[in-house]
Amino acid sequence: MKICVAGLGLIGGSMCMALKRAGYQVDGYNRSQAPLNYALKNGVIDNAAQSFDSYDVVFVALPPRPTVNFIINTRFKEGAIVADICGVKKYIEDAVYAANPDIKYVGTHPMAGKEVSGVENACADLFDRASMVVTRGIYADERAINTVKSLTKDMGFARIVECSAELHDRKIAYTSQLAHVVSNCYVNDPEIDGCLGFTGGSFQDMTRIAGVDENIWSELYLLNGDNLLEKAETLHKSLGNFIAALKEAKQSGDAEEIRKNLTVGATAYRNGKANNFTGDGITVTELK
Amino acid sequence: MKICVAGLGLIGGSMCMALKRAGYQVDGYNRSQAPLNYALKNGVIDNAAQSFDSYDVVFVALPPRPTVNFIINTRFKEGAIVADICGVKKYIEDAVYAANPDIKYVGTHPMAGKEVSGVENACADLFDRASMVVTRGIYADERAINTVKSLTKDMGFARIVECSAELHDRKIAYTSQLAHVVSNCYVNDPEIDGCLGFTGGSFQDMTRIAGVDENIWSELYLLNGDNLLEKAETLHKSLGNFIAALKEAKQSGDAEEIRKNLTVGATAYRNGKANNFTGDGITVTELK
Repeated sequence: MKICVAGLGLIGGSMCMALKRAGYQVDGYNRSQAPLNYALKNGVIDNAAQSFDSYDVVFVALPPRPTVNFIINTRFKEGAIVADICGVKKYIEDAVYAANPDIKYVGTHPMAGKEVSGVENACADLFDRASMVVTRGIYADERAINTVKSLTKDMGFARIVECSAELHDRKIAYTSQLAHVVSNCYVNDPEIDGCLGFTGGSFQDMTRIAGVDENIWSELYLLNGDNLLEKAETLHKSLGNFIAALKEAKQSGDAEEIRKNLTVGATAYRNGKANNFTGDGITVTELK
Repeated sequence: MKICVAGLGLIGGSMCMALKRAGYQVDGYNRSQAPLNYALKNGVIDNAAQSFDSYDVVFVALPPRPTVNFIINTRFKEGAIVADICGVKKYIEDAVYAANPDIKYVGTHPMAGKEVSGVENACADLFDRASMVVTRGIYADERAINTVKSLTKDMGFARIVECSAELHDRKIAYTSQLAHVVSNCYVNDPEIDGCLGFTGGSFQDMTRIAGVDENIWSELYLLNGDNLLEKAETLHKSLGNFIAALKEAKQSGDAEEIRKNLTVGATAYRNGKANNFTGDGITVTELK
């Protein structure tokens, strides 16, 4: 099986390394020269791809809009499987199928990352213990999906999660995008100066992703705007409710209003945890 | 030096174990019998304290209101050092000094914890790599403060942070209490069902402390109400600004508004990090 990864950043580079660790030969492509040279020199890829019409599988590891442009404008081998790795899936699926409903397209989203980017931070074990989301559109090809799932296992992922692109986008707005938004909002407070020594694990956890690349994330937020807006407004309202409860408690001198407010969230969390965060429309396969 | 820890929960129990690891003899006290029996049986303490008038140092590891009651109503040895470990400091300091300005009182706040509580989760290395905040009130006794700092070092803390009780409360409202509030608000969303497989590190970090005991925390929030309200309102406003930017971007189809919004927080975080989160009124001593 001839495999190529287009886009040698943190995720693309790590996919190359994980696939090579599993014994595959992997070629790579990057528009700018420096990451390509780094990948060649450090054995991240075997060869630089000159064209794409000889590969059985092409992983496109680019930001959303370049991903669509690349898939639409590239000549692939007849029957080649083309998979993207974007953090939004409906936008990609719609654009790709609109241009070519016959393409063997599979949407994926590796649920792994780092606070740093670039091929120089890539590593072969980035996906060990991580989930891979695989989305299935109306023109999905079963053979293509099975091949991608098989490669997912070979890359070391711990779990495959299958669902529609729509459901992926709704879930990801909540579990990932909103977390990045909150982290960014959290540090937007002058109180951050002088925090040394007052920062236990809570603060570090809350702010770890506050400095992620605003160019990449603003684009992802916009492309999943409806879902993210709904989730952000839900949180905004919850925080408003807490503030109201705190004000009431301050007036009465009794913590009961706060306690009642906290119980709602704590109970939701405990129930979710008890159900192992399972839900409808999602098929989960544990690989390990 | 005869030491007693009153209140054998996670923090009190861990202080006993850390002090014993350093070679001290440590007696303990707990109002309910089960934790006391556990502590005796498992060597967390050497003996059960029958009274408190023979100890040179008493650490009071209780919630805020019981801490004040205990300190005010207990007969200590002449010149004994009495230190509390509460997550709010001004409330304790004011109440203790109002009752007895001659007491050798030292406010401390070990910046360590777990998502679980109780003496059975205590461990000797809980404070390794953690900060200890030591607050100094108007009647502070230098010898008492130095003894507590010395015991702090012996317990394995990595850093001592000295400041006023007021400054502690402002900082802690931001770095710890607000983080717990956000985590609690975050999980208050039906979207939490079905999240399995969509939860990378961001979600886990954001929700790790969502299930903490609402009885303890509601009390802490109320006793630091002014500071926490200010911090929660700042975050509420930031989140509101993000929502406005997202709406604008959705209308225009251009991510620029979001990007501009994210840049404010990301820049604040990067600047804070570059300054190592240092600030005025706080003395930091690295112990390792």
